[in-house]
Formats: sequence, C-alpha cells, structure tokens
Amino acid sequence: MSLSDESLQETKVELLEALTQEAPNKEVLAERLSELRSADIAEILEDIVEDDEDLPTVLTLLDILSLERAANVLGYLPGEVQVEIVEKLSDTTFLALLEEMGSDERADLFNLLDEDRREALLRQMAHQEREDLKRLASYEEGTAGAIMTSDYVAIASGMTVSQSMMRVRQTAPDAETVYQIYIVDSDGKLTGTMSLRQLMVARPGAVVDDIMIKDVISIGVDEAQEEAARVVARYDLLALPVIDADNRMVGIVTHDDAMDVAESEATEDFHKGMSIGQLEDGVSRVPIWSLYRKRVFWLVLLVFANLFSGAGIAYFEETIAAQVALVFFLPLLIGSGGNAGAQAATLMVRGMATGDVGVKDWGKLLGRELLVAGSLGITMAIAVTPIGIMRGGEALAMVVAFSMVTIVLFGSLLGMCLPFVLERFKVDPATASAPLVTTLIDASGVVIYFSIATAIL
Amino acid sequence: MSLSDESLQETKVELLEALTQEAPNKEVLAERLSELRSADIAEILEDIVEDDEDLPTVLTLLDILSLERAANVLGYLPGEVQVEIVEKLSDTTFLALLEEMGSDERADLFNLLDEDRREALLRQMAHQEREDLKRLASYEEGTAGAIMTSDYVAIASGMTVSQSMMRVRQTAPDAETVYQIYIVDSDGKLTGTMSLRQLMVARPGAVVDDIMIKDVISIGVDEAQEEAARVVARYDLLALPVIDADNRMVGIVTHDDAMDVAESEATEDFHKGMSIGQLEDGVSRVPIWSLYRKRVFWLVLLVFANLFSGAGIAYFEETIAAQVALVFFLPLLIGSGGNAGAQAATLMVRGMATGDVGVKDWGKLLGRELLVAGSLGITMAIAVTPIGIMRGGEALAMVVAFSMVTIVLFGSLLGMCLPFVLERFKVDPATASAPLVTTLIDASGVVIYFSIATAIL
Repeated sequence: MSLSDESLQETKVELLEALTQEAPNKEVLAERLSELRSADIAEILEDIVEDDEDLPTVLTLLDILSLERAANVLGYLPGEVQVEIVEKLSDTTFLALLEEMGSDERADLFNLLDEDRREALLRQMAHQEREDLKRLASYEEGTAGAIMTSDYVAIASGMTVSQSMMRVRQTAPDAETVYQIYIVDSDGKLTGTMSLRQLMVARPGAVVDDIMIKDVISIGVDEAQEEAARVVARYDLLALPVIDADNRMVGIVTHDDAMDVAESEATEDFHKGMSIGQLEDGVSRVPIWSLYRKRVFWLVLLVFANLFSGAGIAYFEETIAAQVALVFFLPLLIGSGGNAGAQAATLMVRGMATGDVGVKDWGKLLGRELLVAGSLGITMAIAVTPIGIMRGGEALAMVVAFSMVTIVLFGSLLGMCLPFVLERFKVDPATASAPLVTTLIDASGVVIYFSIATAIL
Repeated sequence: MSLSDESLQETKVELLEALTQEAPNKEVLAERLSELRSADIAEILEDIVEDDEDLPTVLTLLDILSLERAANVLGYLPGEVQVEIVEKLSDTTFLALLEEMGSDERADLFNLLDEDRREALLRQMAHQEREDLKRLASYEEGTAGAIMTSDYVAIASGMTVSQSMMRVRQTAPDAETVYQIYIVDSDGKLTGTMSLRQLMVARPGAVVDDIMIKDVISIGVDEAQEEAARVVARYDLLALPVIDADNRMVGIVTHDDAMDVAESEATEDFHKGMSIGQLEDGVSRVPIWSLYRKRVFWLVLLVFANLFSGAGIAYFEETIAAQVALVFFLPLLIGSGGNAGAQAATLMVRGMATGDVGVKDWGKLLGRELLVAGSLGITMAIAVTPIGIMRGGEALAMVVAFSMVTIVLFGSLLGMCLPFVLERFKVDPATASAPLVTTLIDASGVVIYFSIATAIL
C-alpha cells in the first residue's frame, strides 16, 4: 500500500524523535528507513527542511542511507530543496552522490548550483563524465533535451540477438530503462528500435537489424518538452528517443518524466487561465513575494482594462440618471456574458492544449458556438424576463432580455475566437484567461446594454 | 517521427481516394497502412466517421488490417465511435476482434453495447473468457477496477528464476506488460513483485520469494482511478497492481492508462473551473445539445445569484442617485475582487488536485493569503487612486481605495477558503469555480463599496 498523508506525518514525527536523540541508533534508523520508499522519504525530508528548517537532521538522515538510495531520494526533491541540502555537503560526498544520480537529474541539479561550485566539481570529474554532464546541462530549459537522460541502452547495428541480450544485462544497473532498446549505426545515427519483449522472444542468432522497427518515433533535442509528453501519451511509449539535428541519438525521455511534464503543464495552464504567472514550485512552498509578483501583474492591468467599463458607464450617465433601475441589472448582464465567454475560452484553450482542437477546426467550431451560445442566451433571457417585468415593467424587461441574448452571444464568440487569434500571433492560447475575457466582455456589455436601453426606452 | 496534423490530413485524403475507387487495390493499401501507427490510423478513422460519416469506407479499411492490428486501432478510438463501427460487424467478426483486444478495452467496449448484443456475444464465448469479461465489465465507472487489465504476468510463489523467465516468455504475446512481475500465493493473494530487470540479473536457481520486493504498492479495486493515476505518478511505476478486499490480485493499471486518466482529470477540472459539466468527449466532437446542457445549468444559476448584486444596488439606490459617479467604479471594484478571488481559488483547487495542498495546510495558507492579498489590494488601491481623484475628488478616491483593499482581501480569502469548505462537505473542490467565486464576490463587493461610500460621503 502507498502511504497516506497521516501515516507519513506519523513516520516523520517518529524519525525526528529518533534522529534528535543524543546518540541516535543508526542501525534501528537504517532498518526503519529501508521499509520506506524513496518518494516518501523525500516528502518527509522536504517537510523537515521547510517546516522545521532543520538541515542538520536531514543530513544525518541522508548519511544513514546508502549512496544509491540517497541519490534516489534527492531526485524526488524539488530543485531548490536539493540545492539547500547539497550546499552543506563536502565536494567529495557531493561528487559520489552525483555519480549515483540519473544523468537527467544530475544535469538539472548542476544547473541550479552557483558558478564557483560548478567549476570546482567539474575539475574533479573524469573527462567522459564531465563532457556528458556539460552537454546535458547545456540544453535550454523547456526543451526535450533538458528532460532527457543519456542512460539508455544502445545496440550497435549488426549485433545478434544474443549479443544484444548480453549488452542489456550489462547495462541493466545503470540504464534508466532497459525495456526499450535503440539500434544506432557507426555514426551514432538512430536506425531502429525494439522492445526487450521482442528481443526475448527472437531467435538468438538473428541480427537485430532484421527484426527491429525501422520507422522510429523520435523527437528533436530542441523541441518543446510538452510536445515530447504529448507524443509519449499519444503512442503509449515507455520512452521516446531524442535526436540532434544530424539524426544522432542523444538521449531518451522516459514515461515517468513525460507524466511529470504533462502534470506541470496542466498546472501552468490552470494558473494562466486565472491570470497567474508560472510558479516555480507548489503553491504551499513558493515564497510569498513570488506569489505576489505572479498575481499582481494581470490584476493591475485588469484594473485599467476595467476603466473602459467605467468610461462606458460615464458615457451613458444621462441614461442611467433618467432610469436608475437599469443599474440593477448591470452586474447580472455583464456577469452572464463574462461567464459564458470564459466557458467558451476555457473549452478552446484546453482543447488546443490536449491536441483535440486545431486551427483547421475553427470554422466548424464557430458554427457550433453560434448555435450553443444563441440557445444559452435565449434560455438566460427567459430566466431573467420575469424579474425585469417585476422591477421596471415590460419595456425594461425587453431591454434586459434583448441585451442578455446579445451580450451572451457576443461574449461567447469573443471567448471562442481569442485563443485562436493568440495562437495565430504565436502567443500561448492559455493567456486568453477568464479574467481577461471577462473584462473585455464587461466593457462591451456596458456599451451593448446601455445602447439598447437608450434606443428602446 | 510522429505525424504532424497536416501530413495526417494528407494521408487521410490519400487513403480515402484509394478506398473509394471502384476496385480498391487491397495490396497497395495494406502496404501503405503497414507504415502507419495504430494511433494515427485511429485518428484518420475517427475523422472519416465524424466528418464524412462514411462508415462503409471505415469497414473496408479495417478489413484490410490484420485482426490484431484492427483490434489495436479500435482501442485508440473514443467509445462511441467504436460502438458505431462494431454495430455494423457480424457477431463472428466482432468476437474475433474482441479476442484480440486488451482485456480492459474489451470490457469498456462491452459496457457500451446494448443489452441484446451483449447477451448474444456472451453466449458465444468460452466459459473462462466470459467470466473474465463479466467480471471486468462489472466494476463501477471511475474506479481502479474499471481501467485495470487482467493481462499481467503472475508467478506462483515458490518458482525459481529460470521457471519465471520461461513463464514471462510464454505470457509475452498476451500480457499488457511483461516488465513488472507479480508473485501470488495459492490463494491468489499478492505477496511480492519484481521487475523483469531484477529477474534477468538474478541467479537462475534462486527462488523468486527470496529476491522479490515484499512491500508492494497496490490499490483497492474500488478506489478512484484518479488515485491510481496519482500513485503511478508519485512512485514512477510502470504498472500498479489492483487487489480486491481479500488482498487477492485482480489486475494492473498500466502507466499509459494512468497518464490518460490524469489528462482527462485535468481537463475535467479545467472545465469545472469555468462551471462546465463533465463532457463525454472532446469539445470538437461532443454533440451540440450536450454542450448546451453542460453549460446552461451554472449559467442560469449564476443569473439568479447575480440578482443579489442587483438587490444590493437597489438597496443603495439613494446613495447612487445622489452621486452617479460612484457607478463609474463599480465594474472595476467588483471585477478586481472577483479576479483576485478566482486566482486564490484556482491556486487551491489545483494544489489540492495534485496533492500539493492538504487540509492540514489550511492554517499556514490562510496566513500567507492574508499577506499576499493585503499587498495586492494595497497595490491596486494605489493604482486606482489618481483616477478616483480625477473623476470625483479626494473623498471619492478615498472611498474607492479603501473599498479596493477591503474587496480584494475579502475576495481572496473567500476564494481560498471555499475549496476547503467544499472538500469538508465531500463536494469536489473544483466546484469552487471562477464564476461562482466571482459572483459571490460581486454581491459582497456591491455591499462593501456602497456601505463605505454611504459612511464616508
């Protein structure tokens, strides 16, 4: 069973008690830790670092684990927590730990260190290792290269099945996955792939080139990591090979890393949808100052955008003064338009993110949205008409009902089109956030409502 | 390389041309299809069914594929499209196709068929197969049981490594994954697990019970499928074993199915965040009527909720009539409160969905939100003060600034608390959608603003 929140908390308290005793019994602790999973130990460590700010205890705990285990645990921690911990380690311990980490996690951590520490570490590494690390650390953040690992199983073209099996066995301890095998030619170019399952049932004397799949799904090293995650999900891959401009194989993106990317992309889009900038960590951990900065930009911008609504109202001041009852329906009308528009925008943004909606679908979707939004507007107009009659008579009810249909229709179409327009101008469609759509519709709603009122009343 | 949107469209046109010729050349077509991936063929088929409503062509195309391939392609199609296609198949062809499908996909499709067809099919199945299908089809939608497959590799406790390897080789053609192996005792209880990698490097004579991992991460068959997806992501699993109430192993949830669940959960939360009900398919495919229904409920409800804002305005009609300039700032103030509140709600909802935020963090987060929202409110008040002075003098500016801080603070705290309150009452926190939060804040904002105005002016 996986650990529940409560039992994790209990385990944490237990461990803290044992660790902060005067002479901690390392054997008992090691025994207890061996029963826990790396992901769970990492969560406990993270809690200790952040809630209790007790770094010495964390170091004692890591010290009790084997190097391999400690490297594993470290890999589950957020980047900044990793840095906090390793800053307290000697170069020797740190180097030993780095060696045990997966090549992708090693490069990520390396990129977070300060210049001096990086130089010092590089000087103490073996040539091959240093070059591999420098190469992996050099890929731009957000690209497939930045999340790939170089620990994959490559088989030279021309090898037999039994030779390949031998190679798989040799590589097994270090490779991120041994279940997908890549065949490369003498130039390092990716020529084919096969699963371990295929290899296991193949005739031992066969040459891999004769049984491999030649048409390999791969991704360029500079392509977006979100694209890598989408390809992994679409074709149900265990790992996706990454190639450079010359078609040479440089790494793989594994299914678990792809899942992490997909999750953080969804979170990012979620936040964008409410006009929140990209947070560097979970909401409970990110610094308060950063949370302020990520939220304030759009809020203040929207304050000024909202002035257009105010200006609209100022323009119709006479109409309002003549019939103050009109103001009664103002929040209702512009709110409804905003809600319908935000719905339409959300459907498009998410559809575009999951690949369900493409620019080619625009025409078809516009027709559908016209029908749906029209029906929605009429339904809402019917709902609001009795109240209009009650509050201000039939004329006012007519104004309100007519405005409702127009505003909902206009809002929905605007909400639907905005993501496509943004995409066209190479802006992330998720920027068409609910607050932006709502504010735009608010201003237009004011004008539509009072224009109709001025015309009819 | 994976296919781009455009090349998929080209391939579709090509295939349609070849298929609708009077005597389609099946050999050439088979050759062409063999170069395509199942996921891509499925997308083309889906397009043909939906855009062109050309079912006969789809059947011809499926007929050219091998049974195994056809079953594979079918598995990538949305449920309703699968049903449309198989309705046109004879029982014999359908049964042969079902046999080739993965057990989880078979059960899903089976559940979508009408009663008569189900009965007819069951009668023609072998006993073992029928029981397996009935069992898998019986799990409630949304549970781990409903997405698990029963095609996994189980090893009897007591077997040696070499016996186990033999078993893996035998099961390889049918199992969903052979890379994770489960050890069960004579009662069918799950006692341990090991990876194929571990098995490959183990001494052939060793007994699996001595090398397996005994503390297996598993999930109950009735637990939510989202929980299964979270466990797979948290522990980077290839597959998660599913057990019944007696700890007997009944299936596995594979990493690719977990990724699909995580994606559709994110989409669902996205839509809920904008008060859209759960769509049964992508936005470009779902029927218009269904799209209307999923959007209208909340919209109409919010119309009535918005009446509270109207009532608030009606209550302060005298204040407004005395100083119409107040209305100028109304959209701005309640809009800003709504935006800040929606931001706070979104951060909480997503944090709770990804497991980053728990109820235990509530106190800490409340303190943080007070600080952040306070700072945001003050910033926005400063931004709006000059406009207040310009429009209506210092007194009005003071009213607006003071209202801004109060409304933003109140809105943010409301937005933050609502998801927790809903969770407490066992309602999905994602129901605390932006429109709901905004509407609640709108009404409160009206009261706050005009109360402050009445007091000061």
